[in-house]
Order: sequence, then C-alpha cells, then structure tokens
Amino acid sequence: MQLGMIGAGRMGANIVRRLLRAGHDCVAYDVDPTAVAELVADGARGAATVDELVAALEPPRAVWAMVPAGITGHVVTDVASRLSPGDAVIDGANGYYGDSIARAAVLAEDGIAHLDVGVSGGVFGLARGFSLMIGGDAAAVERLAPIFRDLAPGVDSAERTPGRTGAPAPAEEGWLHCGGPGAGHLVKMVHNGIEYGMMAAVAEGLNILDHAGIAVGRPDDDPEIAPLKGPERFRYDLDLAEITEVWRRGSVVSSWLVDLTAAALHADPDLAGYQGRVADSGEGRWTVQTAVELGVPAHVIAGSLFARFSSRGESDYGDRVLSAMRHQFGGHVEHPVTGPPT
Amino acid sequence: MQLGMIGAGRMGANIVRRLLRAGHDCVAYDVDPTAVAELVADGARGAATVDELVAALEPPRAVWAMVPAGITGHVVTDVASRLSPGDAVIDGANGYYGDSIARAAVLAEDGIAHLDVGVSGGVFGLARGFSLMIGGDAAAVERLAPIFRDLAPGVDSAERTPGRTGAPAPAEEGWLHCGGPGAGHLVKMVHNGIEYGMMAAVAEGLNILDHAGIAVGRPDDDPEIAPLKGPERFRYDLDLAEITEVWRRGSVVSSWLVDLTAAALHADPDLAGYQGRVADSGEGRWTVQTAVELGVPAHVIAGSLFARFSSRGESDYGDRVLSAMRHQFGGHVEHPVTGPPT
Amino acid sequence: MQLGMIGAGRMGANIVRRLLRAGHDCVAYDVDPTAVAELVADGARGAATVDELVAALEPPRAVWAMVPAGITGHVVTDVASRLSPGDAVIDGANGYYGDSIARAAVLAEDGIAHLDVGVSGGVFGLARGFSLMIGGDAAAVERLAPIFRDLAPGVDSAERTPGRTGAPAPAEEGWLHCGGPGAGHLVKMVHNGIEYGMMAAVAEGLNILDHAGIAVGRPDDDPEIAPLKGPERFRYDLDLAEITEVWRRGSVVSSWLVDLTAAALHADPDLAGYQGRVADSGEGRWTVQTAVELGVPAHVIAGSLFARFSSRGESDYGDRVLSAMRHQFGGHVEHPVTGPPT
Amino acid sequence: MQLGMIGAGRMGANIVRRLLRAGHDCVAYDVDPTAVAELVADGARGAATVDELVAALEPPRAVWAMVPAGITGHVVTDVASRLSPGDAVIDGANGYYGDSIARAAVLAEDGIAHLDVGVSGGVFGLARGFSLMIGGDAAAVERLAPIFRDLAPGVDSAERTPGRTGAPAPAEEGWLHCGGPGAGHLVKMVHNGIEYGMMAAVAEGLNILDHAGIAVGRPDDDPEIAPLKGPERFRYDLDLAEITEVWRRGSVVSSWLVDLTAAALHADPDLAGYQGRVADSGEGRWTVQTAVELGVPAHVIAGSLFARFSSRGESDYGDRVLSAMRHQFGGHVEHPVTGPPT
Repeated sequence: MQLGMIGAGRMGANIVRRLLRAGHDCVAYDVDPTAVAELVADGARGAATVDELVAALEPPRAVWAMVPAGITGHVVTDVASRLSPGDAVIDGANGYYGDSIARAAVLAEDGIAHLDVGVSGGVFGLARGFSLMIGGDAAAVERLAPIFRDLAPGVDSAERTPGRTGAPAPAEEGWLHCGGPGAGHLVKMVHNGIEYGMMAAVAEGLNILDHAGIAVGRPDDDPEIAPLKGPERFRYDLDLAEITEVWRRGSVVSSWLVDLTAAALHADPDLAGYQGRVADSGEGRWTVQTAVELGVPAHVIAGSLFARFSSRGESDYGDRVLSAMRHQFGGHVEHPVTGPPT
Repeated sequence: MQLGMIGAGRMGANIVRRLLRAGHDCVAYDVDPTAVAELVADGARGAATVDELVAALEPPRAVWAMVPAGITGHVVTDVASRLSPGDAVIDGANGYYGDSIARAAVLAEDGIAHLDVGVSGGVFGLARGFSLMIGGDAAAVERLAPIFRDLAPGVDSAERTPGRTGAPAPAEEGWLHCGGPGAGHLVKMVHNGIEYGMMAAVAEGLNILDHAGIAVGRPDDDPEIAPLKGPERFRYDLDLAEITEVWRRGSVVSSWLVDLTAAALHADPDLAGYQGRVADSGEGRWTVQTAVELGVPAHVIAGSLFARFSSRGESDYGDRVLSAMRHQFGGHVEHPVTGPPT
Repeated sequence: MQLGMIGAGRMGANIVRRLLRAGHDCVAYDVDPTAVAELVADGARGAATVDELVAALEPPRAVWAMVPAGITGHVVTDVASRLSPGDAVIDGANGYYGDSIARAAVLAEDGIAHLDVGVSGGVFGLARGFSLMIGGDAAAVERLAPIFRDLAPGVDSAERTPGRTGAPAPAEEGWLHCGGPGAGHLVKMVHNGIEYGMMAAVAEGLNILDHAGIAVGRPDDDPEIAPLKGPERFRYDLDLAEITEVWRRGSVVSSWLVDLTAAALHADPDLAGYQGRVADSGEGRWTVQTAVELGVPAHVIAGSLFARFSSRGESDYGDRVLSAMRHQFGGHVEHPVTGPPT
Repeated sequence: MQLGMIGAGRMGANIVRRLLRAGHDCVAYDVDPTAVAELVADGARGAATVDELVAALEPPRAVWAMVPAGITGHVVTDVASRLSPGDAVIDGANGYYGDSIARAAVLAEDGIAHLDVGVSGGVFGLARGFSLMIGGDAAAVERLAPIFRDLAPGVDSAERTPGRTGAPAPAEEGWLHCGGPGAGHLVKMVHNGIEYGMMAAVAEGLNILDHAGIAVGRPDDDPEIAPLKGPERFRYDLDLAEITEVWRRGSVVSSWLVDLTAAALHADPDLAGYQGRVADSGEGRWTVQTAVELGVPAHVIAGSLFARFSSRGESDYGDRVLSAMRHQFGGHVEHPVTGPPT
C-alpha cells in the first residue's frame, strides 16, 4: 500500500527500503534532497516539499514522520494541517508518550488519526525487521496492518512461544497495537528503560571481570584503602571477547545485547575506541520519571540511568562534597590523581 | 569418551543424557538408586557406590560431580580420595570460585586435576545444549574437550559474530576454558549476576506497565500521597503477554529471558501462580561481594539482589523504623494495610 | 509586625503561636472555626472569611497560606485576587517549585509579591523554631525579615560554624533568602530528598543490626538459599534503643533523625505500633525527577524513595515476574509464605 | 585508673590526652618516639618498647591498641603474648568484627579479655568526646567503665531523649557495651555504613542544587541528549554555603555531617581544594557484605559505596562497554570529552 515518509535519515530511510522490498509504494521527503535522491534510487518516489508528498498520496493517506524527537511535534502538527479527515499520521520518533496523547487528541478534532509507534531494531532493522509498538485509533491500525506486518521481523525470526498455535498473532510477527493514544510510545519507553538496565547489567559484570586481576602488583599497605584478603582470587587475566562469545549460546543471559557486546569486543578487544562517556536519550529518563509518578520501584533502571550521568562527570561536585566532609571529620586527604591506585 | 557422573538430579541427568545421545560412555551414581535406574534405562551404566563408579572407569578417569552447592566440597574431596594421579574431577555445581581455587590446589598435590565448570542452560540444556565456563588445568580441559564440545549448543545455535571466520573457536561452540582454577566458577558467578540484573530490568519494566492504569478510580485528595498530575497518562489496560511477545523479535531487548517471560505470561497472564517471594542463590550474593572486594560499582546487580531480599519481607524492620521516624517528626500516622491505596 | 495566616492546622497554628510569643500581630483564618478559636485563645485575632482576614490587615499586607499541597494553588490565587499592589503572599506548603515560579509570575502582574517558603521543623517547630528556605522578591523578603527571624531557631541553637564571626547572617539564625521565585521550594525539596536518604541510611543500618541474630536456629541445608558461612558472626541479640542512644553523642552520625529514632525505640522497642508501610509525599518524588531532568546521579535519594514504594507492596507484580522467570528456566518453585525462612 | 596505649597517632594520642585531662594514668608506646615524647609532654608516661609498657602497668592491666586496621591483628596478638590472665586488650581500630570474634576466642584461652571498641568522633573527639561501641567480656567492660565514661562526651552533650529519666545510662553518656565479642566492631561498622549513606544523601542533594543553573547557556538541539523542558526552572545560582548553614538549625536534616559540610563550604565555597576522588575504608565494604550475607536490602549504603568507587574511575571499563553497545545497535558515536556539554 501507499506510505509517505517524512525524514530520510538512518531510521526513516531503512523503513522505506524495507517497505519497498515488500512491494509497497513509498513517497519520501527530507530537508536534505540527497537523502531523498538515495531513496528514489532504491525505488521510492521523491517529494520536494511536504505539500508535494501529501499530493502524491491517495486518500485515505498515511504519512510517517521519522524525525528527531526534538522536532517531531512541529512536523506532525505541520503535516496534519495539510491532511484531510480519514488520513493518518504515524509518529515513529522516540517521543514522550504524554505528548502523543495530547497530539492525538488535537488531530482527532480534525478527523485525523495519530498513531504513536515505537520502533526498535536500530541500524539492523532493515535486515532483521523492526519491532513495532503501536498506540492510537484501532481502525487506523487495522487499515495500516500491511505496512506494520512487512516492517516487522516476522514470526519465523524466533521460535514460537510454547502454547501458541494456529495463525500467528501480530505480536508474534513483531508488531502490536498496544492500546489507545500514547500506548505505543509508552511501551517503547519502558522497552528502552529495560534496555538501559540490561545494558548496565552486562557492563557491570564485564567490569568486574576486567578487574579480576587487581591483585597483580597491588600495594597492600595503603591506610586509605581496604586491604585485599585472599589475593589469589584476584589474579586472573580474562579474555572478555571470548567470554561474551560463550554466553551467546545456551546461557541464560543470551540476548541480542550480548551478541552486540561480543561483536564489539571481537572488533576492539580493549574498547580503545571509546571513552566511556555514555549518552542517554529521553527514553531512560521518562521511564524513571514515570515510575516515580506511578509510585513503583525502579532501582535497576534508575541505577543504570544515573551511572550514565556519572560516566559524563555529573557526580563530580557531589564527590568533592564527600571528600570535603572526610577531610573535616577525619583529616583525610585525597590521593592525588596521579598517585597510587585507590 | 568415558565420564563418570555423581549426582543424577535434574542437571546431572540431563548432562548424562546429552552425552549418551552423542555416543559417550557414561557411568552414573546417585544416592537415589531410582535416579540411576532412569539413566540406565536411557543407556548409561549404573554404579551403586562411588567406588563402583571409579572402578568402572579406565584411567585417566574423569568424574563429574553435579550435586547441590552445599555438599559439593565433600563430594569432590571424597571422590578425589579414590582417584589416581592423572585423573580429573569436574565440579559442575554453582560453587564459590574461591573454594574452587582452594580445592584445585589440594587435588593438585595428588596429581589430580580439578576443573570448575559453570553450567548455564537450566532445564532446557538437554535440548538446547549447555553453556560451559571452565576453569583449571589446560591439559585436562584439552583432554576432555570432546565432552565439553558435545554438551555445548554448537556453533549453529546462533549466527556467527561478524568478523569471526574459519573453524569455530570453542567459545563459538558454547564452551570456553576461561583460565586457571576458579576461572570457570568466577565467570559463571558473574554470568548469574548479570542474569539477576537483566531479570530485574524486565521485572521493573513490566511492573511499570502493570501500573499504567493507576489513575482509574484513584482518589486524588489523600494528603499522605502525592497528587497525580495528568491522570490521562495513567489509564491504560495493557496486555503484558502480548507486549513481551512483541519484544521477542527485532527489539533491542530480545533475549532468552524475554522469551521465557513471554511464555510465562502466555501460560498464566495474571501470574496468579506466584506469590512474588523471590529466592536467591549464592551466585548473586557472591557477585556483589566480589564487586565490593574489587572496588567496582555494581548498582544494578546489587539493586536486583536487594529487591529479591525485600520481596521476601526482609526490609520490614527498616520500614517500620522509617514510619516511626515520620511519626516522630511529623506526627504522621501510617495508613492501615486495609485502607485506601497509598 | 502584622501577618495573616490562612490555614490553622498543625503547622499553621504553630507558626502563629511562635509569632504571637514574639509579639507579632496575627490574624488567622481556617475553614474549621474551632482551629481559629484555639488561636484566638492564644492571642491571635480571628477571621471568619478570607475577606475578613484581608480587611483586618493594614497594607502592605502579608498573608501566609499554610494549607495542604493539593489546594495551595487555589488558596494562593484566591487570596491574591483580594489583595492590592504591594501586598505579599507567602506559600509555606511543600509545593513543587516549578508551580511557585509560575504563580509568582502571575501575581507579579498585579504587583503582588509571591514568596515560596520551605518550612522544616515539623511538630517541634513551635519550641525549636522553624528552618525557613525562602524564594521570591528580595524587597518583600527584606520587609518581612522580622517575621522570618522570629520564626527561625536563632543563632544560639547551634554552635557557630568555624570562621563565621561578627553579626550572624540570616542563615545562621535559621532563615535564608535562597534566590528568586521557586528557590525556597527548590531548596526545601532537595532538603527533603536528603532527608529521605538519611532516613533510609539509618533504617538500613538498623535493619542489618536487627538481623544480626539470624544464625540462631537457622536451617543450613535449604538448597534454595545460600548457606551461611561463619554463623558465629550472626548470633547477636542487640538492643537497638541503646545503640541509637549511644550514637546521639560524639558520633559522626549524630543528627536530629537519630535523636528521633532513639526516642521512638525507647518508647516502643519493637516498633510494634508500626506496620512498615512508609508513605511518601511529593518532595522525594520531585527531587528524583529534578535530578533526572538535570542529568545528575541520585542513587541514594532514588533508592530511598523506591524502598518506600516497595514497603507498600508496589513491587509485587515485578516480584511475581521474577519468580515466573525462575520457574521457567530452572524449574524453581517458590517457598510458600508460611514455609521456612528464605 | 591505668591504661597503656599502643599507637600514638591522631586517634591514640587524643584518647590519651582526654584520659589525662580526666586524671587517668596513661603509659604510651609508639614506633615513633617523637609521638610518645609529645604525649609525655602532656603528662603521659612513655614506654620505649611494648615490654616496657606492660611492665609499667599494674595487674589487672588494660592495654589499648590504636593502630592502623592492617596491623591491629599483629599488635593485639603480640601484646597479648606479654600479658597475664586477668589482663585486657582493647582493640580500638576500625577492624572487621569477624576478626574480633576470632581474636577474642584465642585470647580467652589465656584468660585475657579482648574488647573490640568502635570509636567515632574523628579529630574532634578530644574536645567533643568519643562515641564508644564496645564488644566483649562484660566483667572487663565493667572494670574499665571509668575509662570509657571519661572518654565519652557525657550526657550533657545532647538533650536527653524524651522518657529517659533518673541516672543516665551509659549509652546516654556516649558509651555502650553492645554485646559479646565483635559486637562493638559490628555496631561501629554499621554506624559507618549509615555514615556513608548520610554523606551520600547530602552530596547528592548539593549536587542537584549545584546544577540548578544548567539552563543558562545550554544548547537545546543536541540529538544525543534529552531536551530540557521548562528551562525557567533551571536558572538558579545558589549559594550552597548559606544553604547548608540554614539547614543546621531547626531542619530535619540537621546533623553533625551538615555542620561539617557548612564549615567546609564556608572555608572553600567552590571546594576547589578537592578533586572528588573519594576514598573508602573497610567499614563501608564490610557493611554491604554483611547485609548481603544476612539477606537484607541495603540499596542506600551500597549505592553510596559504589558511588565512591565510581568517583575514582572504577566504572570506566563498564562505561566503555556501554558506549560500545550503543555504537553497535544504533551507530551512536560518543561526544569527545572536549565537546559540548552532555
């Protein structure tokens, strides 16, 4: 079927390409004409303006906005102003689900459906398929099902869950109408919160293993640090690329994230290409904020988010406060940065 | 090749069965003769005593102990006392790696190799293969490689990591000689620590989604609880079985743990069969303790462990301390358990 | 000087009483005439309506609203509509500082000053004095300084900080103009966040000590729980009322919260009067949310907030998810609630 | 009464001085004769060897060892070998309480009492008095009560707890016989764990306030970071020295740690003298390890410990793992360290 795509960046372009391969008719627009041209070369129709894109689609239209989270509100509102009752706008950005609820209500006044779609799969989505979590009007979701079905990985990409038989449900194909407006972005938000926690679990574990040789050459008589009992337990030199590789098959932690970690460590065993200043997007933050609003504990997800903040030096002032207190009550003096290991 | 197995419980029996299917010659002993008889029915040779088991093996022997963590030390020491120089004992329990280091040193004095093998895969190992993390003498590991290779899932059980070519490394088959004595149990310990963190991430996320309907029927005027802003954001009724199902394909959190969660929720959507008193074994505790000894942060793994403690009511006294403080400084009185939602 | 007080609950009434004792002229209004009558008996003037209260004050007026957080916005807006340019409204509730910024901007359009004042001290404030954190227009704060000074505990209530000499600064008297609109509520919000963390630290420590006899009578052979090494370390029967008492003098943790804990434990050594369902107000939540917005780590404050949520059973669903996963991969069955200790 | 002191460092010397001021007879030994000479100048008797010190005391003797935690075991064992039945050794170091249990058992075989005494008060103890948490033989504690009483701050150093009347209990004077061997060091260990948590709560809160001006000059269009909503809430320039000062009187967080923080900030408002590499001693680590062994949650204390580890760069490898994962699945590239604020 027909789909208009606004935004031909990494994600938007791959969505279009996957749809083209499945035989859909896509019209693409981007502020960067080069990005559009590349999609045209792959079989899409190009549009030089949003108006052109809208004109190139037959009602009831479906326009997917795949633009940075910071501007998705503007883009959705703008395109909606050019659409007609019965049309649908799909917001595929990592947006805050509360904003999606509000936007859907506004568009509904003009008879335009607003679908909020959380898209997971990253740069691998073109080949593996995208996981789609969809919120909004049920009729619009049903109408656009062919799009979602072809974007999703398909039921064969994993063994069926025990007990599930018959025709696969959409969730088994990799897409799901989660509920009314906002539900898609809500589920995607929590998905990313879980992702933060899983990533941190792996990182913490590997960090422990990376330190497993700490007793080699360590001074034992520094009064400022705790002495090491049983140093024979801390003299390993482990190969983390091989360890993550072995976890990929048959282990309880086998997961796509472990697959990716094994790939990264195979390519760069010392991770020398990274500084460890870990960025975060809104999703992790919103998840913690929502947990707080709902009054449910989220030790792990919050801990993983805060660790990212710390990785960027955001705990420095607090750390200096701690050293200042220690100096006050105990006369303790900090080790200089260039000093012995602490 | 030949292997003696002491312990024919769930794990030991499945290891034997998987080896039998691959054509190995297994001798099994268990305190429970019925368990041995079942393995004999599947093609193993049975032994009525440890001595019988030892006598049934040709040197250099390999005896695998797969018994509860609490008694593995006794069993290993006991069987080693009946073995000869050149033989090997494999400790496959979830043991503390420091104990494995000590035991290997003792057995080495008698010329007996001690291999500590972390085994992951649970009840699915028979069919999927077991993930094996091995520590100890390199020569013994090499000699027993056929055993490990056939127990492991094999390279075909996952796509190869990009950049890996040629003959698959053992890690790609699903087994790895991680290092000297203790390395296997150390890597398994950290594996389980990661597992705790991943599980908690999933549980927290689903708990958030489970609360996403909190605004339905909620009183808004209780001075003891924070008022809910934007209640339209908290009126969802989500189907968590479908949501975990959709995450199984193409999403960043796709993992065996999500697979299992989807299966559990499909079978029992309300999880009515569980009380939420979550057990923990030594592995998670040792991981946190080791992190503390090494001086590396483990917010997520520790948080997941503590949450299990709390699930069993172990924070109750501390919680009463908090309520007592609040009563002292603010005159606050607790809501009765049977009262309004807090 | 003159002050009108709207709200004669626990906090509002004690503020009036402390001002009366210092010789100020207070007019009080409350929806409950009895509460007003009690203040009149203590020397205040009573008002039957807000209009009466406003009429009883000479311009430039100062009206303090001390009402529950949920209605403070309405009350402030309402009273401001009856005031004149040059008057001031003081919002003493535990309000969200972002709301205070917005309200101050609205009132400023009518020439009315809005001061947001965080008040700490609880039920002891009448005797000990209140700690006041003030945001808003500097001129209004200066005009009302006599009120703030007399409400505050005064410089003699603690030793002067080393290096501070000369006339005490307002902060040394116990009140502070923290900054522009919202600054008072912001500082109070963070104060309460710190309070949550401190309280949790004490509660966790006492909970550890409360468990220090865990080895007495504990079964050692439960395969579902980690065996206890060195049980001689866990056979204490400690007197927590005495322990908190000893911490009150000379120790690094000496603090008002420890004072209160010692008092609570002296009065009720088993804390039998509490169930351990710990309430939270908006302050702790806003602190965590603000930390997330600012991108700064708050492991401790968030951890203390989440522990309160868990104390009220809000982790139950997530805990059941964990047990379900464990059942899936390991065949583990939960201990019944009435079973052996886990 | 008489006391021998081994170790005339900061803590040992101040203990001797406080006892001398109270009229006790002290004999001091240290490997550094200068330290002894200084105490002799203050009225102590000096000893050139441990034997001399023992000879200078009349039985039943009491010898206090106040040496670094790493060597306290050696010192206690050594001095005990020179003592007679009925004598007592006091271990005042921050030792692990399990070691104290073991040492007390060994000394008991020779009829020598071993008291483990946790000492809090830091460099201020000489003037304020020391808080003493004591474990070991009740008779020895009773015999040495005059020593403990004079070291402690005394009942007048804080208001009496409501409900406590009559002759003050030892805990009210600031010293407590907590229980049998190890109980003193156990209670001190947990005290320090609480201290870690309280310190972290203050540090986190001040760090939040330190960031309260984050919106000033912040770019709003970086796709790698979450956009800032309501930037008017983040334009403060707060004076943290004044804010901690105001919290010292009447607030719920008033505490010695806040006193010290206010002093540190008054002396060095930017904390320019600190780098924020926060040391930890064994106490915090042992507290977390003990919590894990006991199966009780310690989110806050563990979080505060891990944050210290992170402050020293110990999360760096894990952070690089996270960035590597993000690069793998999303193609995300880290901001260079010298780049825009993240």
